Amino acid sequence: MIIENLKALALPSVSQPYEVRDTILYALGLGYGSNPLEPGELQFIYEKNLKVVPSLCVVLSHPGFWVQRPELGIDWVKVLHAEQAFEIHAPFPVSGATRGEYSILGLEDKGPGKGALLHQQKILYDESTGHRLATVRSTLFLRGDGGLGGYGQPVAPPLPLPDRAPDRTVEIPTLPQQALIYRLSGDWNPLHADPAIAAAAGFQRPILQGLCTNGIACRAVIQAYCGHQPERLRSMFVRFSSPVLPGETIRFEFFEEAETLRFRARVVERDVVVLDRASVAITG
Amino acid sequence: MIIENLKALALPSVSQPYEVRDTILYALGLGYGSNPLEPGELQFIYEKNLKVVPSLCVVLSHPGFWVQRPELGIDWVKVLHAEQAFEIHAPFPVSGATRGEYSILGLEDKGPGKGALLHQQKILYDESTGHRLATVRSTLFLRGDGGLGGYGQPVAPPLPLPDRAPDRTVEIPTLPQQALIYRLSGDWNPLHADPAIAAAAGFQRPILQGLCTNGIACRAVIQAYCGHQPERLRSMFVRFSSPVLPGETIRFEFFEEAETLRFRARVVERDVVVLDRASVAITG
Repeated sequence: MIIENLKALALPSVSQPYEVRDTILYALGLGYGSNPLEPGELQFIYEKNLKVVPSLCVVLSHPGFWVQRPELGIDWVKVLHAEQAFEIHAPFPVSGATRGEYSILGLEDKGPGKGALLHQQKILYDESTGHRLATVRSTLFLRGDGGLGGYGQPVAPPLPLPDRAPDRTVEIPTLPQQALIYRLSGDWNPLHADPAIAAAAGFQRPILQGLCTNGIACRAVIQAYCGHQPERLRSMFVRFSSPVLPGETIRFEFFEEAETLRFRARVVERDVVVLDRASVAITG
Repeated sequence: MIIENLKALALPSVSQPYEVRDTILYALGLGYGSNPLEPGELQFIYEKNLKVVPSLCVVLSHPGFWVQRPELGIDWVKVLHAEQAFEIHAPFPVSGATRGEYSILGLEDKGPGKGALLHQQKILYDESTGHRLATVRSTLFLRGDGGLGGYGQPVAPPLPLPDRAPDRTVEIPTLPQQALIYRLSGDWNPLHADPAIAAAAGFQRPILQGLCTNGIACRAVIQAYCGHQPERLRSMFVRFSSPVLPGETIRFEFFEEAETLRFRARVVERDVVVLDRASVAITG
């Protein structure tokens, strides 16, 4: 990795128009519609009184897979999506256009052979009004790029979850074709569709997108803690710890703490934690 | 109904661009992807070596719901989609643009109080090459417009199926959200999403699109009789006899006749025939 080039990196803003059809397709990609008579589901998948699943902010105006740029010298095949956070500033229109503005917040060096954490930020604006809609942060784990030094403000790691039984659990099944529906919302990485590419990456079959699991976590929160009102979900953080395989059922385990709601997610069939140390802020 | 206005009707041609994403979304709307490791399914839902499900021709360059035009005086709330046929002339590009040209072939009067059958045709062209891709015919049953006389060449009704056990059956389950995925391919009729509108139309819940059932029939034929090679399916005819409810399983019952392959389709859970007197032509 060439840190000076990373520091100098200026990613151009990306404008993305989206239609009601895209908003609905995103929700179907999260598995909404499996109870098609439920008003709490219908509000995300039917154009009458349509609402936006808040995690749509993570897919709109995506900057692209810029870590592949040769001038950065990043060992990009070893890059993992480690953490994802978003904060909603204003309700999303069901159609329109967003503009994303990007910055690299910093690099945390874990030492030689231990990789580095790269923190990046996207601020999403409503293209027509100029209003700020959401701030989206994600952390990439550059497994092959440790020991080169860091810069920027280090980000406090998320606290472990309480060591007790969860206060509430929610189970959400996924479809065998969940990754195939989800990828039409913009993540065309063949790892999520092509059995040969998944096998080459060491997986028994194509895995679910981490950001799909992240969106399904939104579903669980909106259902269990927001009374099906998505506008009450203000912010969310998750750490990705293992992938889900399409068709598996995800159990969300919630811990109601004094200041915040915490959770993790676990694949029921394999008893593997897939999201960890997550937290969410709710209003109302 | 004002027959002179129907005879004089000139529907303008409709051009429709479509992308790989649309081609894949159409296949997902038919339930492809439920066996995401099967090459026979993957070929329709993954962009590498992508193939088009032949019944895509029924949704591209749709002329719109022109029977609502006030000058025609058709009792349009009583209109049913009765029959659907298509013939493929050339393989469909996985993306591009089609141009549809439309004509009314004729009206068969069933007599006062008995309605009339309206036969219409769409010829689809590849917008870039001008080549003819498909001829699509559909018959509308105008239940409220009988006894006004007919015109045009009458269409021979399809023969009944043989009175014997089928030679082969194929069962294909549908998803609870099948209609919701399918409608993103262009059929936004709220009957297929809105529980209140479905109830007002006399259904216990939103029904599956007839053309989705038609596309699932294509799936069954391609799987059972084409060795998963969609280009072998040359033409298909179906008569709609009852709607499928999303989530139900459809059993296709095939009769291998000397000249042609015939079939019907039945909802397993309710033992109701949903497609009848169907026929299909296969090459190779």
